[in-house]
Amino acid sequence: MTPQESRPKTEALFARAVSVIPGGIYGHMSPAHSIPEAAPYFAERAEGCRYWDIDGREFIDFMCGFGTMILGYAHAEIESVAAAQRARGNCFNHPTQHFVELAEELTSRIDFASWAVFGKNGSDMTTWSIQVAREATGRKKILMVRGAYHGVDAWCTPGHGGLIPEDRLHVHSFCWNDAVDFKAALDRYRGEIAAVIITPFHHPAFGQSDMPEEGFIETIESSCREQEIVFILDDIRAGFRLHTGGSHRFFGFDPDISCFCKALGNGYPISSAVGREALRVPASKVFLTGSYWNNAVPMAVAKACLRILDRDRVIDHLDAMGRRLIDGLLEVSRRYGIEITASGPPALPYITFAEDRSFRLMQRFCRACMEQGVFFHPHHNWFLSAAHHETDIDQAIDAAELAFSRLNHEN
Amino acid sequence: MTPQESRPKTEALFARAVSVIPGGIYGHMSPAHSIPEAAPYFAERAEGCRYWDIDGREFIDFMCGFGTMILGYAHAEIESVAAAQRARGNCFNHPTQHFVELAEELTSRIDFASWAVFGKNGSDMTTWSIQVAREATGRKKILMVRGAYHGVDAWCTPGHGGLIPEDRLHVHSFCWNDAVDFKAALDRYRGEIAAVIITPFHHPAFGQSDMPEEGFIETIESSCREQEIVFILDDIRAGFRLHTGGSHRFFGFDPDISCFCKALGNGYPISSAVGREALRVPASKVFLTGSYWNNAVPMAVAKACLRILDRDRVIDHLDAMGRRLIDGLLEVSRRYGIEITASGPPALPYITFAEDRSFRLMQRFCRACMEQGVFFHPHHNWFLSAAHHETDIDQAIDAAELAFSRLNHEN
Repeated sequence: MTPQESRPKTEALFARAVSVIPGGIYGHMSPAHSIPEAAPYFAERAEGCRYWDIDGREFIDFMCGFGTMILGYAHAEIESVAAAQRARGNCFNHPTQHFVELAEELTSRIDFASWAVFGKNGSDMTTWSIQVAREATGRKKILMVRGAYHGVDAWCTPGHGGLIPEDRLHVHSFCWNDAVDFKAALDRYRGEIAAVIITPFHHPAFGQSDMPEEGFIETIESSCREQEIVFILDDIRAGFRLHTGGSHRFFGFDPDISCFCKALGNGYPISSAVGREALRVPASKVFLTGSYWNNAVPMAVAKACLRILDRDRVIDHLDAMGRRLIDGLLEVSRRYGIEITASGPPALPYITFAEDRSFRLMQRFCRACMEQGVFFHPHHNWFLSAAHHETDIDQAIDAAELAFSRLNHEN
Repeated sequence: MTPQESRPKTEALFARAVSVIPGGIYGHMSPAHSIPEAAPYFAERAEGCRYWDIDGREFIDFMCGFGTMILGYAHAEIESVAAAQRARGNCFNHPTQHFVELAEELTSRIDFASWAVFGKNGSDMTTWSIQVAREATGRKKILMVRGAYHGVDAWCTPGHGGLIPEDRLHVHSFCWNDAVDFKAALDRYRGEIAAVIITPFHHPAFGQSDMPEEGFIETIESSCREQEIVFILDDIRAGFRLHTGGSHRFFGFDPDISCFCKALGNGYPISSAVGREALRVPASKVFLTGSYWNNAVPMAVAKACLRILDRDRVIDHLDAMGRRLIDGLLEVSRRYGIEITASGPPALPYITFAEDRSFRLMQRFCRACMEQGVFFHPHHNWFLSAAHHETDIDQAIDAAELAFSRLNHEN
């Protein structure tokens, strides 16, 4: 079947999209960015760990709204909390009690934090945090890991369009897990560095995830303390997926500011930065506001979401389901003589095919899985959710087996 | 009554807020920024043009969620559209049909636009637009009006904390309604200017609104055409409050990109930039994405909101209610020998007291109105909504009369 035959509504709507939206679809699902033609382009509805595209095709979802739907789609408790607050209102001139209660919840949950602020996007918070670091230190330079994703603002976007050299004049990078390279950058800009920003493990798009080697983050941490540099953790993607107190607890280190977003609101838009007492005054001096930043529903939901993560031991579940998925994929791939590698924590796994630099094998694999109703992303880490159960994982492994056999047959 | 007696819950919650949030409340309602002590700090619920704070105090709202609630709080049709989409889902891996349909709606409604993109905050779109201009022109410089508010990103924030000189090295300003000053800036940076960004009228905080003088915007427009500079309209605050096709139609000029936000989603978080065909390719090259940017509910709501704005002739209603309010305030102030000035369009009026440079009179006036259940902001323009009716306006004028008499008595 041609794409026109298998997904006629998608093709028709995408043709309309192309005429009124630059590129038709932008961002991480842009068809211009190596997304297979068989992929769903437009969602129709979702429930649990499954969704349906506008052509009625059902998918087991291993992206979970790019990590936002940690409890699963249409989660009854979350929707009921949201409905209760919505009946009172969402967008006001002012914050609500949830604003204070969520800040209390985060500062009590996150060991080093004594304050919290809120935004909408992850970028809102990473960018604000580097400003707080500049305010606190009176310095300009930011050190980040080469290839790390911290959002779409000019200082860090993976895009190339529209940038000017001044956007990154004071942003310098070092290689992940390379303490020598980090120390060299530190020496090069001694006395000028406001902040070092890292993710808790390295999770670039188009590349394997890389866990921190022993001593690497400790080197960063101790250097920051010694030179009074603000140590920022971008925990937007992994936060509350590895540890209920933030990913620094999982890996055993202590940042000065942590940024959260994805797992906080189960799809209701909210992000947060939390920080140390010593940064409270500089934090109060960097202006932040947005038309919808005080919205009450996402804050009420975030409190509930964190409570459910604890109560239902969701982190253990994500780990177990991720392990089952990885073990199954490794086993069936071996059966067909195909070598794949799983990297990153099981809760956010990243799969690569050996010697697949062009990502063509991975794309063919994902396409074959999509055709069987399993949505794997070809170049971004995947996400498990509380709504994935063993039968869902096993169904995905069965689809993967057929995909491997097809790859094997084609080669 | 002391504030502790008149608003015990507010005082108690604010004390908790101060301990877990820098400054307790940040942004435009920060008590550190000239907000009277009698003000509501935390909202409890809202309906129509009224809301209640956590101490149960009722207010007629003349801020409307800082402009977001153009149809009023808890608008039945909007909430029903939102509920229908929510039952299908909100946050997916993909956009939905609403993404395409809203882009179609905006490009058919806005005369010069052939494409649209969406974000969450106003800043998301103004910042992205200047990047598109830089991409399109290969130039660096941005000209903006001195004191204009385009959001909280480093190139334009009204805050001072955390900035470095490079943030604004290529951002230069000229005075509103001063064509000579504009031309001088244009000459100074000839060949280097990527974009000129303006609001449709000048609406600074802590200052009177200023409508464009004849020929001023035309000078900007023709200069931009002549020098192939991208002309960006920040229509975030005024958009769809003055004209259903965008505020450039109200004033009679033609930008290359317009940014919208406030009136688009009746409180559901969404912003948009729309632009000319010639900018489609550069627009496709400036990466944009956010965890919640494709959320379906705000897009479904925005389509409905625009349709209701047309059907109910909301713009005429905002104008009529704004005029009634201004006329009433002018009349009762005159009765007490107090000179006030109303500036800006009636739908977004801005009130100042003569010779009140410290804003102390305005603060005392607003405090007295708040004590009678009318919420006027002391240094930001106000907003009317579709939910304000003559009786609400008249009640507000009665409260203002008592406030004027009190001011008069105190002086």
